[in-house]
Amino acid sequence: MPASPDELRELVEEYLEDLGLSPELGQLAAVARYALDGGGKRIRPLLCLATGEAVGVEPRSLLPAAAALELVHTFSLVHDDLPALDDDAFRRGRPSVHAEFGEATAILAGDALLAEAFRLALTYSSPQVARELAQATLGMIGGQYIDVRGETGDVLALHRLKTGRLFAACIGCALWVAEVPQADQAGWRRFGDQVGLLFQVVDDLLDGDGYAREHGPEQARALADTTAERAAALLDTFPADTSILAAIVSTLSTRVS
Amino acid sequence: MPASPDELRELVEEYLEDLGLSPELGQLAAVARYALDGGGKRIRPLLCLATGEAVGVEPRSLLPAAAALELVHTFSLVHDDLPALDDDAFRRGRPSVHAEFGEATAILAGDALLAEAFRLALTYSSPQVARELAQATLGMIGGQYIDVRGETGDVLALHRLKTGRLFAACIGCALWVAEVPQADQAGWRRFGDQVGLLFQVVDDLLDGDGYAREHGPEQARALADTTAERAAALLDTFPADTSILAAIVSTLSTRVS
Repeated sequence: MPASPDELRELVEEYLEDLGLSPELGQLAAVARYALDGGGKRIRPLLCLATGEAVGVEPRSLLPAAAALELVHTFSLVHDDLPALDDDAFRRGRPSVHAEFGEATAILAGDALLAEAFRLALTYSSPQVARELAQATLGMIGGQYIDVRGETGDVLALHRLKTGRLFAACIGCALWVAEVPQADQAGWRRFGDQVGLLFQVVDDLLDGDGYAREHGPEQARALADTTAERAAALLDTFPADTSILAAIVSTLSTRVS
Repeated sequence: MPASPDELRELVEEYLEDLGLSPELGQLAAVARYALDGGGKRIRPLLCLATGEAVGVEPRSLLPAAAALELVHTFSLVHDDLPALDDDAFRRGRPSVHAEFGEATAILAGDALLAEAFRLALTYSSPQVARELAQATLGMIGGQYIDVRGETGDVLALHRLKTGRLFAACIGCALWVAEVPQADQAGWRRFGDQVGLLFQVVDDLLDGDGYAREHGPEQARALADTTAERAAALLDTFPADTSILAAIVSTLSTRVS
């Protein structure tokens, strides 16, 4: 009987709460902690744990990888919020890191979160989890750069990098910890791509920007529905109990915040 | 017959010049490249290669680790130069990255350099090199935060973090690639600490700041000399040909730029 999404999310929250950041960060650790405690949906670590359950990995053994994915996501938010980038003074109803602690501190806290993410990913004996994380982070940064330059010619290509690469890595990290051979990963990785696209298109719908602004809300809703169906269809092809992942896909498709 | 420091530096320069950055970075790769091509002394990769030679590792096999160390150093310069931190418009006689490309691009280019550093460090089959890099990077960021806050109560403690941790990692990465057991690494790591201190105190002397401003140039010179002697004495205790490292220590002690 697999754990429910809520049980998995609880595991993630507990792990993040107890997570010891490097003592050498000194006072900066408290700033990184502020960023991490912002009450995010933890959708990335949840996906990682749920994929692990489907492929037969004890969720607890995935927690360092799951946390590393959340730290990379948090790093990207801290830097994206900076005045030189999106200039957001608020994040989830609280002052953003630079608004609360100043710009220099926010830059360094983002750097620290990224380095801590690799430290966590490197607690595994194999380097595969950290490699997956490095590649995804580079794709995400490349996407962020396209966004900053306003080169939004192909909004789906932008989403594939900026959001999709890290979502796909949530699946990928679980596969590596489960020691699923690379030759057997393709279907799972297509599933990761679909989930990333689903998340971002629904985000665009809720915010009225990106794909929804470019193609209208009806076409965005249609794309979200098709993508959710594709993701669910892929889940049915895996010889595994994917019920928790199916529930997550359904929640992502119908979420209203 | 070990290679000379100049031959090793030439190897590093060629490797960095040919280094392919991730295609997903798009145009940002050219910015990271600008930062990397700034004509630094390449002292960190040089130390890594020279240590490798002493412990019997072919320099070429150390090039990814050596480059990763230089990329972490370059990432730190790009972020340190930002207006919110040191606000330096010039670096080695050229416009700094934010002065040339804008602040948002400089933040993302620094992020990209850090992620690329891990990608390189993760090309080894063992995760030890990347772990060494992650720990050193966290220490360096912690040091930078102390510096930003102006908490310069103990300038040597600051140097140990901000400069020393990455210098020590240059030695550490070479030891891991050479598969030197952790139990046999202590002496080498003390050498790394001394070299880091030597580099920074001479830097302070040349710039008239840090330890030289706090304790005067004579005391700084005396500390540099003692540190160089300690480093040389440690080299003599290793059952290895450390002539190249001794030459590097001597150069670091007497450098005038």
